[in-house]
Amino acid sequence: MTATSQKDWTTDVREILRVGPGFRLSDVDADSSPGHNGDKDAGGRDLEAGVAQLEEYQERLFAASRSEATDASVLLVLQAMDTAGKGGIIRHVVGSVDPQGIMLTAFKKPTPEELAHDFLWRIEKRAPTPGMIGVFDRSQYEDVLIGRVRELAPPAEIERRYGAINDFEKRLSDAGTRIVKVMLHISPEEQKERLAERLERPDKHWKFNPGDIDERALWPAYMDAYQTVFDRTSTDHAPWYVIPANRKWYARLAVQALLLEALEDIDPQWPAATFDVEAEKARLAAS
Amino acid sequence: MTATSQKDWTTDVREILRVGPGFRLSDVDADSSPGHNGDKDAGGRDLEAGVAQLEEYQERLFAASRSEATDASVLLVLQAMDTAGKGGIIRHVVGSVDPQGIMLTAFKKPTPEELAHDFLWRIEKRAPTPGMIGVFDRSQYEDVLIGRVRELAPPAEIERRYGAINDFEKRLSDAGTRIVKVMLHISPEEQKERLAERLERPDKHWKFNPGDIDERALWPAYMDAYQTVFDRTSTDHAPWYVIPANRKWYARLAVQALLLEALEDIDPQWPAATFDVEAEKARLAAS
Repeated sequence: MTATSQKDWTTDVREILRVGPGFRLSDVDADSSPGHNGDKDAGGRDLEAGVAQLEEYQERLFAASRSEATDASVLLVLQAMDTAGKGGIIRHVVGSVDPQGIMLTAFKKPTPEELAHDFLWRIEKRAPTPGMIGVFDRSQYEDVLIGRVRELAPPAEIERRYGAINDFEKRLSDAGTRIVKVMLHISPEEQKERLAERLERPDKHWKFNPGDIDERALWPAYMDAYQTVFDRTSTDHAPWYVIPANRKWYARLAVQALLLEALEDIDPQWPAATFDVEAEKARLAAS
Repeated sequence: MTATSQKDWTTDVREILRVGPGFRLSDVDADSSPGHNGDKDAGGRDLEAGVAQLEEYQERLFAASRSEATDASVLLVLQAMDTAGKGGIIRHVVGSVDPQGIMLTAFKKPTPEELAHDFLWRIEKRAPTPGMIGVFDRSQYEDVLIGRVRELAPPAEIERRYGAINDFEKRLSDAGTRIVKVMLHISPEEQKERLAERLERPDKHWKFNPGDIDERALWPAYMDAYQTVFDRTSTDHAPWYVIPANRKWYARLAVQALLLEALEDIDPQWPAATFDVEAEKARLAAS
């Protein structure tokens, strides 16, 4: 049974999108909307229905952490090729909940200070604190994606990183963080259309970088690097989900559903009062 | 003329709420809705109408900062007595814009590390970077509010801080940050009702702290401390606005209006392309 009030799922979104043994990225149809029965309009209604549920879960998670009875948090990791829709997910899914409960980090090209440390140094500093929903817009995986494709580190160092990431994520998980790793998967043809739109519209020019076209030429190398990431780092404590993302409505709905499932697993409860409620009522009345 | 699409303002919200010479906090009616003609329903419609405008301004501000042509940012400082509605402002006004453009900080009781530095050390680290809307939930003003009322520092140190804050804010302002300082003003009777509600509802118990009632006994001392803050730190480059906040709809609408006015002053523009658009179209087509 799904936790969500999103009505048009035919199956558990985690089952259908999770990277398990034998997963092949090349088998995923970026145009598809697996597990969902509806069209764009139905998807929009489902997304709207999920907002109130996500808000309540988030507030409960935050409240529960104040009681010191739980250290639970959530970490959503977003990875994708350019234009795949990370920004839209953050704006429309993450942005639908109270910003006081969100810890969002956009990881850019590392600074000299960051490069002087191990690649996980800057990541660990932004791990969500108890009660928070952390969101990584890009992440430690850049260091084995662009890091590998662009040969920014020696092969042995890239090899080392997969294990280091697994150890790091296991430690976060053991400390109470539920990790949801998402790759938004678009087709190169879809990317071409989205880049063309950015070039057509003056209000989108700022989002365009000529380097985006250079990266396109490396598409197969990036897909290989993602496949290796999935083979090496989709673990029980931190599974990967590959979400077909040519349809933006589907990708947003799927990410919302994955967050809802993670929060339902935590099942945060309003904490009991740590004070004598009736005594405080009397004090308040006298104040 | 007001920049906003909020229709029911009868006058410039900045004029009517700004702390100017001779301002007396004790003259402000927390129940009032100065400058606004409508009721709660009209206020709700105005708030809704302002959201799209705020979103576009925020995106323009963010985009403009990418071009390096501008260092503009906005800083919203929120101060208030407990239950006055800071959280609601963050959720409903700040939360209506893209979280990627928001840099939100909730300042808590200082940690030992923070206390080992000057009081502005932790504040400066969270000043908004170019293109961002910074939001301070509590701020440097705690150090002259609770700091003064609870005598957490010697009187001479409290005195020093007003000047240090003015210097700090002038520096931020000179660097391109438009500062909007807001005090949400509720009456002690309204606070009593809101605290009573927190005690009635088990899902609100986590928001209640018995210390809140102790602070109520110090209400007049806090109002004095706020008056001194207004007398000493409402400057041209960083004015204070006192917003009657017994009506939540009014307070939210007023903060949104103040943000819209600040953004209109900046008037951020979509940056021009830094590349040859036609050449990039050709490269994309060939990719």
